[in-house]
Amino acid sequence: MTYPPVSLPKNIPSPLTLTTDFGQGDPYAGSMKGVILDILPWAKIIDITHVIEPQNILQAAYVLSIAAPHFPLKTVHVVVVDPGVGTERRAIAVYTDRACYVGPDNGVFSRVYRYEKLVTIRELSNPFYRLPTVSHTFHGRDIFAPFAAYIANGVPAKSLGPEVTDPVEIPIPLPERRADGSVTGQIIYTDHFGNLISDIPLEWLQEHDVWLFEIGGHIMNGIHHTYGSVESGKVAVLGSSAGLVEIAVRNGNAARSLGVGTGETILARPAV
Amino acid sequence: MTYPPVSLPKNIPSPLTLTTDFGQGDPYAGSMKGVILDILPWAKIIDITHVIEPQNILQAAYVLSIAAPHFPLKTVHVVVVDPGVGTERRAIAVYTDRACYVGPDNGVFSRVYRYEKLVTIRELSNPFYRLPTVSHTFHGRDIFAPFAAYIANGVPAKSLGPEVTDPVEIPIPLPERRADGSVTGQIIYTDHFGNLISDIPLEWLQEHDVWLFEIGGHIMNGIHHTYGSVESGKVAVLGSSAGLVEIAVRNGNAARSLGVGTGETILARPAV
Amino acid sequence: MTYPPVSLPKNIPSPLTLTTDFGQGDPYAGSMKGVILDILPWAKIIDITHVIEPQNILQAAYVLSIAAPHFPLKTVHVVVVDPGVGTERRAIAVYTDRACYVGPDNGVFSRVYRYEKLVTIRELSNPFYRLPTVSHTFHGRDIFAPFAAYIANGVPAKSLGPEVTDPVEIPIPLPERRADGSVTGQIIYTDHFGNLISDIPLEWLQEHDVWLFEIGGHIMNGIHHTYGSVESGKVAVLGSSAGLVEIAVRNGNAARSLGVGTGETILARPAV
Repeated sequence: MTYPPVSLPKNIPSPLTLTTDFGQGDPYAGSMKGVILDILPWAKIIDITHVIEPQNILQAAYVLSIAAPHFPLKTVHVVVVDPGVGTERRAIAVYTDRACYVGPDNGVFSRVYRYEKLVTIRELSNPFYRLPTVSHTFHGRDIFAPFAAYIANGVPAKSLGPEVTDPVEIPIPLPERRADGSVTGQIIYTDHFGNLISDIPLEWLQEHDVWLFEIGGHIMNGIHHTYGSVESGKVAVLGSSAGLVEIAVRNGNAARSLGVGTGETILARPAV
Repeated sequence: MTYPPVSLPKNIPSPLTLTTDFGQGDPYAGSMKGVILDILPWAKIIDITHVIEPQNILQAAYVLSIAAPHFPLKTVHVVVVDPGVGTERRAIAVYTDRACYVGPDNGVFSRVYRYEKLVTIRELSNPFYRLPTVSHTFHGRDIFAPFAAYIANGVPAKSLGPEVTDPVEIPIPLPERRADGSVTGQIIYTDHFGNLISDIPLEWLQEHDVWLFEIGGHIMNGIHHTYGSVESGKVAVLGSSAGLVEIAVRNGNAARSLGVGTGETILARPAV
Repeated sequence: MTYPPVSLPKNIPSPLTLTTDFGQGDPYAGSMKGVILDILPWAKIIDITHVIEPQNILQAAYVLSIAAPHFPLKTVHVVVVDPGVGTERRAIAVYTDRACYVGPDNGVFSRVYRYEKLVTIRELSNPFYRLPTVSHTFHGRDIFAPFAAYIANGVPAKSLGPEVTDPVEIPIPLPERRADGSVTGQIIYTDHFGNLISDIPLEWLQEHDVWLFEIGGHIMNGIHHTYGSVESGKVAVLGSSAGLVEIAVRNGNAARSLGVGTGETILARPAV
């Protein structure tokens, strides 16, 4: 065993993050990390999560949209939730003013298109940047990981493949302000504490002091600022760490207590 | 995409570890890592665990106390098990002769106070070292992560905030030696193999060759040195890897077999 | 807190990977990482998985054999699935032309012996490279982690301990081609999507266009190239990402649908 001398990187390579539905026990995430390190030995690889529900593209889109903004500029975020692997669906890299997103063109970047300033989208077609053999069932390893490693190391967007102007978008419902002053939205994420996170921005509720909330036949009132200001076991409406209306049970599980989950409608009415 | 040249660190920044109850699927741990890397691009971030039982402060305290001593001197250990987030509870950094512990002042560092030599405790109040906007519900991201990154990069303790002299301590029961030569303790941790780890130091049992152990109505005898020296499926008392009395079932699950768990009393009597 | 200046490594140290049955919540994996970083502050530590079924040596052998080939040459792969810890079983490092494997000599490297070119096997007996105190129950922390860190940093094989010429091997059943043109094999892995991966190489099935597959009383035909080319909810036989015959249900769980799992026999007959 002798080790060849290497030169240290002149620049810090961009961090890479992984968001997948591979689970914790299978060799798939490890295989991707191996491919990345083989190309970029100094890579800084960060797991966002590998337990996205199998093939739940919307869940992946949400989790990524919450975690990604906190990473350094030019971070490369790789997402592999890819039920269409091996079909005609394209592999893409989405460049915004903040970061680069690498994954299948199946709508998983719909929130990126909505909330970030797009620079360019490229198809990952240049065979130079993928593994020599590409399987039909694991593009995470054969396409997304190697492309991401090269991107993190500074390969320019234009070298990856042709521009994509018609990426797949999944329509994401938007919260609405009604004429009567009420607001409707829906639960877009349920976290493992059982907290129900809606798509209603907290700032929409600043016009009134007291609000009534309806969800799944339950009615709650008020906005609490902290979990701690609520009685243990009681349902409370408060602001999520992402600035959205959230329903929580202190030291408990709101999803279980209320019997509702992601997709449920929520209505907020100003109290008279 | 162009990358600015950066200078390499002159010193190795301290590693940072994370111990939380965030679970594996939510974007919260990823958000903290993003914040840390944004401040300290060369950060070495190590997950100890993210599956502490929600809000189980004692479990976090135990897991940290077992893993932390193996890390390099000056490692920064971040703990976020924080049911009081957003209330008046303080955010603190605990400096010992070995490491720096960052988290809420809710007693999660009680084992640190007992087993390590304290240097200073600081409140994390200097607004320069936290995120510009601090939410009411996620101080892991807004306070603990950025402070920890600055600490790992060498910011001195006195810059963080005022000294704390009255940290919250959770009384941790201690094992006892009785006048009749017996020893009582309790199970302080049940690992995922089902091994029951007590707080009785193995070295307390050196005076006698044979001991009888009582737990949950079961009686066992002897001390075994290895899992392998026990018959498969049989309950055995042996020394844990942390030097404590542990009850295990070879190729089985002691917690399930005995129907006991964390908190259970254990009694050891010298056999006559 | 002052930080001593350090010199940067002249060479990139080899990455280290971890494959264990420690689970996600216990302090054991974190303890190993602490030991590694204490010896080699620049170590790049990659988790392959920590949720190998407790003491399932064959599962660890399979997962490692799929992930390891993607890592850079000279990567150090540490495996701790070690029911015989503390007994007479040896601790070994297996050097091949590709990588170094560190773990217990209990057969967990049987696939390495079969599929890679062996260079040397060494017993990990030199006390200089282990922790000063070695427990009876946690050699992952006390022996494998420190030896692996030194190996990753370039300590030569001959310094570790004497050569081992009789490593423990677990007989791994092989798929068979029969005189009548049919092929038998078995399911060697079930992933978390419920995909059933057999040991039959896809290339064995190139001689005929159409095959019939029998498993657990079910009969399927054909080979599909992608998950996407199958109707949702239907069972399909296709090539795994490792080039093996795999049974999958599109947007479903083949193991559950067919009621079979790892160890099940699979028969492939050319259709007439």
